[in-house]
Amino acid sequence: MPLCAAAAMAAPWKPLLLNAIQTNSNLKHSSFFQLATIGSHGRPANRTVVFRGFENGSDRIQINTDCRTSKVEEIKHCSFGEICWYFTDSWEQFRINGRVDIIDESEPDPLKRQLREKSWFASSLKSRLQYLGPCPGLPCISDETSSNREYSIDQSSGPVSAFCLLLLDPDQVDYLNLKSNERISFTCKQDGDGNKCWTSKKINP
Amino acid sequence: MPLCAAAAMAAPWKPLLLNAIQTNSNLKHSSFFQLATIGSHGRPANRTVVFRGFENGSDRIQINTDCRTSKVEEIKHCSFGEICWYFTDSWEQFRINGRVDIIDESEPDPLKRQLREKSWFASSLKSRLQYLGPCPGLPCISDETSSNREYSIDQSSGPVSAFCLLLLDPDQVDYLNLKSNERISFTCKQDGDGNKCWTSKKINP
Repeated sequence: MPLCAAAAMAAPWKPLLLNAIQTNSNLKHSSFFQLATIGSHGRPANRTVVFRGFENGSDRIQINTDCRTSKVEEIKHCSFGEICWYFTDSWEQFRINGRVDIIDESEPDPLKRQLREKSWFASSLKSRLQYLGPCPGLPCISDETSSNREYSIDQSSGPVSAFCLLLLDPDQVDYLNLKSNERISFTCKQDGDGNKCWTSKKINP
Repeated sequence: MPLCAAAAMAAPWKPLLLNAIQTNSNLKHSSFFQLATIGSHGRPANRTVVFRGFENGSDRIQINTDCRTSKVEEIKHCSFGEICWYFTDSWEQFRINGRVDIIDESEPDPLKRQLREKSWFASSLKSRLQYLGPCPGLPCISDETSSNREYSIDQSSGPVSAFCLLLLDPDQVDYLNLKSNERISFTCKQDGDGNKCWTSKKINP
């Protein structure tokens, strides 16, 4: 059934996801999911990242990352990503596919710059300190691990240059519930006015 | 440091992985990981699958799947996959990249056919029954979910045609330990005799 016009404003899979987040919130790892991208040489790449909430009033998913990681370079070459989010307590899986927007220091749009800043200040001081460490993925140049080095950061300082916000804008969601053995496929199309229009169908698990 | 010749027979990341499996074995979901592939239209695809052990005497990773799922079609087009395996108790992540071999009903190699059969009989009866259900991913044609339908299978019957064994042969492994803040990158090259030769280096997390 197509859900366009006014109803299209709300993605029909979002209440299911919010409910899963709530049901599994006693587990720290329930906010972790795996983000797949197209890696170098066209191979798939996959890593665990942390859910940093939805962009206010939208269904875009926020992820913080270091702009020196290879995923940022990968997303510049192919801007699509697929999240696989498995909830270990409720046995629910969300596969969320969409285009990923990179919001880094060079972002010209003031609203996006503001989003990046907001996400920076929403992070713990410990999280922020990670962006001051040596370049991720490069060989360690000393036995000293970054956790042993002492970095300091002013609580009121804005985002450092390595800090990057990724925004995944879903256009395909595959929901699987392993307890009820139900699976629903959600697909988004834009109508003539650029409004998002979601359709959903029950499919075989 | 390169580890060739005799030492090359053992992949240096395997003891780390076996240890993580052991340490987290009290959690049922510790045998689940996310497998990324290149999906249709060149977008990344990502889903949770179950670890079915290593192929005997090797470091190839076994995954059972239904050959009617889209991942099998995807692997036929691009045979590389990346596993992301996060252990929620020990805070360790393994990203395992390699070529995926599809062993289905049409497999001519008798040794591979035997592997597929062995993996079939190692599965629970409940797991085997799933392969008799309707085609995964197709629209449900009735309100009756497959879990309500009654299928039966003889315990001694060999693999059904939909049953497929995937074998991922790792050639790149990225290990991250979030407790010790250590990260090691393992890379495999084949020497002139076709022997696998692993090198490893500590990299910044």
